[in-house]
Amino acid sequence: MPDRIRLGMVGGGKDAFIGAVHRIASRIDDHFELVAGALSSTPEKSRASGEALSIPRVYDDFKAMAIREARLKNGIEAVSIVTPNHLHYAVAREFLKRGIHVICDKPLTSNLPDAKKLVKAAEASGAIFVLTHNYTGYPMVRQARQMVTNGDIGKIRVVQVEYPQDWLSVEQDFKQAEWRTDPARSGAGGSTGDIGTHAFNLACFITGLEVESLAADIQAFVPGRLVDDNAHVMLRFHGGARGMLWSSQVAPGNENALRIRVYGETGGLEWAQEDPNYLWHTPFSEPKRLITRNGAGSDDASSRMSRIPPGHPEGYLEGFANIYSEAAAAIIASRHGKKPLESVIYPTVYDGLKGVQFVSACVTSSKRNASWVRLEH
Amino acid sequence: MPDRIRLGMVGGGKDAFIGAVHRIASRIDDHFELVAGALSSTPEKSRASGEALSIPRVYDDFKAMAIREARLKNGIEAVSIVTPNHLHYAVAREFLKRGIHVICDKPLTSNLPDAKKLVKAAEASGAIFVLTHNYTGYPMVRQARQMVTNGDIGKIRVVQVEYPQDWLSVEQDFKQAEWRTDPARSGAGGSTGDIGTHAFNLACFITGLEVESLAADIQAFVPGRLVDDNAHVMLRFHGGARGMLWSSQVAPGNENALRIRVYGETGGLEWAQEDPNYLWHTPFSEPKRLITRNGAGSDDASSRMSRIPPGHPEGYLEGFANIYSEAAAAIIASRHGKKPLESVIYPTVYDGLKGVQFVSACVTSSKRNASWVRLEH
Amino acid sequence: MPDRIRLGMVGGGKDAFIGAVHRIASRIDDHFELVAGALSSTPEKSRASGEALSIPRVYDDFKAMAIREARLKNGIEAVSIVTPNHLHYAVAREFLKRGIHVICDKPLTSNLPDAKKLVKAAEASGAIFVLTHNYTGYPMVRQARQMVTNGDIGKIRVVQVEYPQDWLSVEQDFKQAEWRTDPARSGAGGSTGDIGTHAFNLACFITGLEVESLAADIQAFVPGRLVDDNAHVMLRFHGGARGMLWSSQVAPGNENALRIRVYGETGGLEWAQEDPNYLWHTPFSEPKRLITRNGAGSDDASSRMSRIPPGHPEGYLEGFANIYSEAAAAIIASRHGKKPLESVIYPTVYDGLKGVQFVSACVTSSKRNASWVRLEH
Amino acid sequence: MPDRIRLGMVGGGKDAFIGAVHRIASRIDDHFELVAGALSSTPEKSRASGEALSIPRVYDDFKAMAIREARLKNGIEAVSIVTPNHLHYAVAREFLKRGIHVICDKPLTSNLPDAKKLVKAAEASGAIFVLTHNYTGYPMVRQARQMVTNGDIGKIRVVQVEYPQDWLSVEQDFKQAEWRTDPARSGAGGSTGDIGTHAFNLACFITGLEVESLAADIQAFVPGRLVDDNAHVMLRFHGGARGMLWSSQVAPGNENALRIRVYGETGGLEWAQEDPNYLWHTPFSEPKRLITRNGAGSDDASSRMSRIPPGHPEGYLEGFANIYSEAAAAIIASRHGKKPLESVIYPTVYDGLKGVQFVSACVTSSKRNASWVRLEH
Repeated sequence: MPDRIRLGMVGGGKDAFIGAVHRIASRIDDHFELVAGALSSTPEKSRASGEALSIPRVYDDFKAMAIREARLKNGIEAVSIVTPNHLHYAVAREFLKRGIHVICDKPLTSNLPDAKKLVKAAEASGAIFVLTHNYTGYPMVRQARQMVTNGDIGKIRVVQVEYPQDWLSVEQDFKQAEWRTDPARSGAGGSTGDIGTHAFNLACFITGLEVESLAADIQAFVPGRLVDDNAHVMLRFHGGARGMLWSSQVAPGNENALRIRVYGETGGLEWAQEDPNYLWHTPFSEPKRLITRNGAGSDDASSRMSRIPPGHPEGYLEGFANIYSEAAAAIIASRHGKKPLESVIYPTVYDGLKGVQFVSACVTSSKRNASWVRLEH
Repeated sequence: MPDRIRLGMVGGGKDAFIGAVHRIASRIDDHFELVAGALSSTPEKSRASGEALSIPRVYDDFKAMAIREARLKNGIEAVSIVTPNHLHYAVAREFLKRGIHVICDKPLTSNLPDAKKLVKAAEASGAIFVLTHNYTGYPMVRQARQMVTNGDIGKIRVVQVEYPQDWLSVEQDFKQAEWRTDPARSGAGGSTGDIGTHAFNLACFITGLEVESLAADIQAFVPGRLVDDNAHVMLRFHGGARGMLWSSQVAPGNENALRIRVYGETGGLEWAQEDPNYLWHTPFSEPKRLITRNGAGSDDASSRMSRIPPGHPEGYLEGFANIYSEAAAAIIASRHGKKPLESVIYPTVYDGLKGVQFVSACVTSSKRNASWVRLEH
Repeated sequence: MPDRIRLGMVGGGKDAFIGAVHRIASRIDDHFELVAGALSSTPEKSRASGEALSIPRVYDDFKAMAIREARLKNGIEAVSIVTPNHLHYAVAREFLKRGIHVICDKPLTSNLPDAKKLVKAAEASGAIFVLTHNYTGYPMVRQARQMVTNGDIGKIRVVQVEYPQDWLSVEQDFKQAEWRTDPARSGAGGSTGDIGTHAFNLACFITGLEVESLAADIQAFVPGRLVDDNAHVMLRFHGGARGMLWSSQVAPGNENALRIRVYGETGGLEWAQEDPNYLWHTPFSEPKRLITRNGAGSDDASSRMSRIPPGHPEGYLEGFANIYSEAAAAIIASRHGKKPLESVIYPTVYDGLKGVQFVSACVTSSKRNASWVRLEH
Repeated sequence: MPDRIRLGMVGGGKDAFIGAVHRIASRIDDHFELVAGALSSTPEKSRASGEALSIPRVYDDFKAMAIREARLKNGIEAVSIVTPNHLHYAVAREFLKRGIHVICDKPLTSNLPDAKKLVKAAEASGAIFVLTHNYTGYPMVRQARQMVTNGDIGKIRVVQVEYPQDWLSVEQDFKQAEWRTDPARSGAGGSTGDIGTHAFNLACFITGLEVESLAADIQAFVPGRLVDDNAHVMLRFHGGARGMLWSSQVAPGNENALRIRVYGETGGLEWAQEDPNYLWHTPFSEPKRLITRNGAGSDDASSRMSRIPPGHPEGYLEGFANIYSEAAAAIIASRHGKKPLESVIYPTVYDGLKGVQFVSACVTSSKRNASWVRLEH
């Protein structure tokens, strides 16, 4: 049988969306086998979920799981953390301190102090920490980043990034909506934390730039909502580039319309998450070029992340699986005390910290009437 | 022969782009006949251009033209002003004070004091003043405005409007570029004045909202450029809606990519200038609907501005001609001492003033590190 | 005043669609002035329409018009024929034999004998005959043709052309539908004659190829309809290329969705009438390229037919106006006893004959159970 | 551990594309575990591939595998056949006669006699036979079929289906191209067999109609090619609907551009494989509606096949996995001697026979100069 990486999961019980995504992503390239879990905050739900998923070892709580798995001869080598945001730190800490690799959903934590503590916990641990900013796993995102690095669009001047959704246009009371709009569990940011961090991370990932400061005007349009559901942000990057970032959960007609446009001195790039197999390259004064995943014009950075021929679309789950496969490469190298190849890229705990700093800066800026707030680095 | 409105033109000589557009627009619906012109700032060029265009009466300068045409029995009834921005006021004044209707290109003037004087000149004159914010002439823009008025998307929360171009990504030295990047002729705003005003006007036209204040971060990316070539603007509307506006002339791959998205409590609308025969309507929780000009789902507001069946695209010139036809309706009514029908809509000198205020506010805000600046009203 | 070509019109009274199109098209580039008309088959309607349009000389019938205009010192130099199909021949003959240039709507005639007689009448006359296969006037269609000529896609193998509409999906009883579904006025072909001829003409125009034979399966889906409302046609071109042609008036969701794709040994081209400012060029093994009218990658063949900058869409009326402007170039050259420049291109009476042969071959083939029928040449 | 279905694989060694697809598809929903394989026609390659994939039991040839696995207590319950076409029958027979379920790639066989024998073998076996016409697994294809069944577009009149590719525009000599252009291994059809069968199957699947007869004009454009690389086919369906089918491997710019449009008396549907999360519904005289997978307007037939929220694209592998999950549902039901739920749908051996009949009819018709050929049923 394949010598798969033994994986555990915390969170991701029956009603959750993202837990199922992580499980599928872990299977696609056959690197992981899910063998343990603490899938819910209530023991009954955890057991019921574990049974439904045929998970061999089910725990009532994550701490017991961490302790016991660390002692087992064939205990888990890695854990996926897919709880609401406010638990990420406490859960990750338990596994990190026992040397178990962590694959953690974003945002890193629900607040900045937790984020900083988690960075320290990760640094203190020998284990690998992977944050699932999954959009960085899309092949054409990798190619966009590579093209920027190659200088294909020249020095960057302008970045336009947006992530509009519509599902919170009205008050919602199902579970996904409930915790995401509760500052105690989600953090001070609503749309900024849930999707703005993705947009922010993507902009930095593709451009290779760091944000120096931002000015944010955030709103909660739905009456009674305690966190932002719409955010307008202006960005200033180190080195002189400027950007705009829009996140929204109240934009009817938008499902997960994450989209980025990057303009340099000699050309532009454009990519949209809902049609992820395409990348527009627009060299100044030449016809626009439509590059397709694994097709004409694709490069090694994207082909490396591709499984099937051009014209057979890969999607969200394959992009997510790419993060898991990068994690697997790092974990397998680590089994032998090695580093993975340089081409292996995944979002780290430092990217996670930056995301939490982004949310924090948005909230601070908005309270100061959209004054510029510097991001710590 | 048709009793066409006798039209004059100031500016619009041989090398100009916008003069030719005005001439075609004036002909499409057969309401105007161009009979006089002062087409250039140099008499020789004016005469050569007039001859090339077979214009019956050609003048060396606009003042002489205004004086003489006002005295002629069959002198011009209206004049199109298509000079660089800094001349709009001086030219318009001469015709307005002689009761000759004015159709003036945008922005209204190159600076705020001129704009205010022009408002007074228009108010003092009995003549009609039409500003060619031509994008408001597109049928589906009219329908979008009507749908907002009808409440089809509910109370507006968020407006996203942008007008990126790429032609000034590098230094350009031909005539169109030259005066547009010269603050003395163009005004303090570069992209903000040339195209940002269009985006601003369109947002107000469709939503029926007024901007209360804005925060702008404007840049001149091309070395040596004296006016902005990129602008990031956050908007706060009276009544609580928020918006973002992006204008750019350094975004490779964008020709005239004016695009607006408006989101209300119950739905959204989306329109793009480069594909103007389509209007997306996205009612919350229903499939997106693609409405086509004169086709299924189109209403009176758009059909009234349409000439041909759906699927036969109308374009920029037809949208521009719609402004001319609205002007014609007003001028013809005025021949009989009447007002045009209520359905007749065209941008006025007050819209022009708002546009100049927008540019001024952008420049002021940016100088104050993107602080909020209130727009005067 | 401009020395415009004096134009007459036969047909195109109040309720007609195509007459208004011809009138606008004739005005856009300021080459024509409409001065005479016999706008309807009934004298009263003709006069009412003429008055509504302020046409100086209105006639009760086209023959009287031809006779008198030919004698007038400043009689018309050209006539636009926009009647139902069955009248094209009789009308054109009267003007051609008096040396008056003819601009005639398509299809050339309602039957093949008339078409052949009209060819002879045109050959016998010194006058110019222009058939308004208006889609050949679109700039990007010109560029596609030029690129094929240049060898940019290599020897052509496959042509896919289609023209679906939906307006006759149900029985319709308004005037446009009535004569178009009456074989006595429209001819033996329904969709094949009305729109199939456009698709056929476009395929030949762009590829420079002639159809050798076709096999057609045509249908009348709406009960009681006497002419085809849907046609499936396989094409064999001289030289070995093959094609498919689909015309339909019963395809809900299609307005005027004329679209052509041409594939050669080294690349492909794709153009769609509803989005006419774009041309896809797909060189084998390279990224797809999106060429825009007057923009990056456009050539002289398209720029020559363009009025305004890229990103400001031109549409159906401008494409139609291009045919009128080509006609004007020929007529003006003819005033001086000359031929127009070689770059001047317009559909001729021979193209019209081929279109009628196409319809006839479709009907014949379909009666023979879709056997191959050779086209005469 | 999950009680996964024990799966074997014949074919699908290292260089193959489709074997890897089947393996991923089998894992996505966690129903299968690959435990045995005869992955290549040469024992060495088979063993090397098996080792690379960590497959527990590797065989030198498929017959030995069938014999031994049938005897093992925990032998495979199902086998995936991913060899070149000419081997499908021989391989399937060995497993079917031992009661092992078969999941077989398409086309069913390389010739009609084999197809008929395979039907008999499947009928004689108690085992399940699933043919991977994987495009029927796409959620929006399921919804299209359901909408037709619901009468949402009325009685069907016209079907337009096409599957163009470009990879064989030039002579290719790598393995995938080699056997696909060899009639001995691929069958008499080239593009018709490889992709035309998919288009044909999809048209029948969505419409619920059977093809009565077809007329085909097929070509081999690339010099020396022994099978068709382009096919033009007219279709007549039982009940009066008509269609066109185009398959091509020489259309530069097309990757896997399978696309279907279905028009009924009251509306239309349109779906494209390269953008599979969208389904256009065009009710006559209403605005076009864009339905998204799992989003607004989606129904049970598509949601049942969906894993993740709208706007997070699923792709080819998920569509393929849906076929595997349907197969799993049938296999699991069969473990208990039951039939799966009625909602479980997968392509059967009879669909495979129809595909081979389609290829055969295309070849026959083309030899008879595109005469109509009836399809056997």
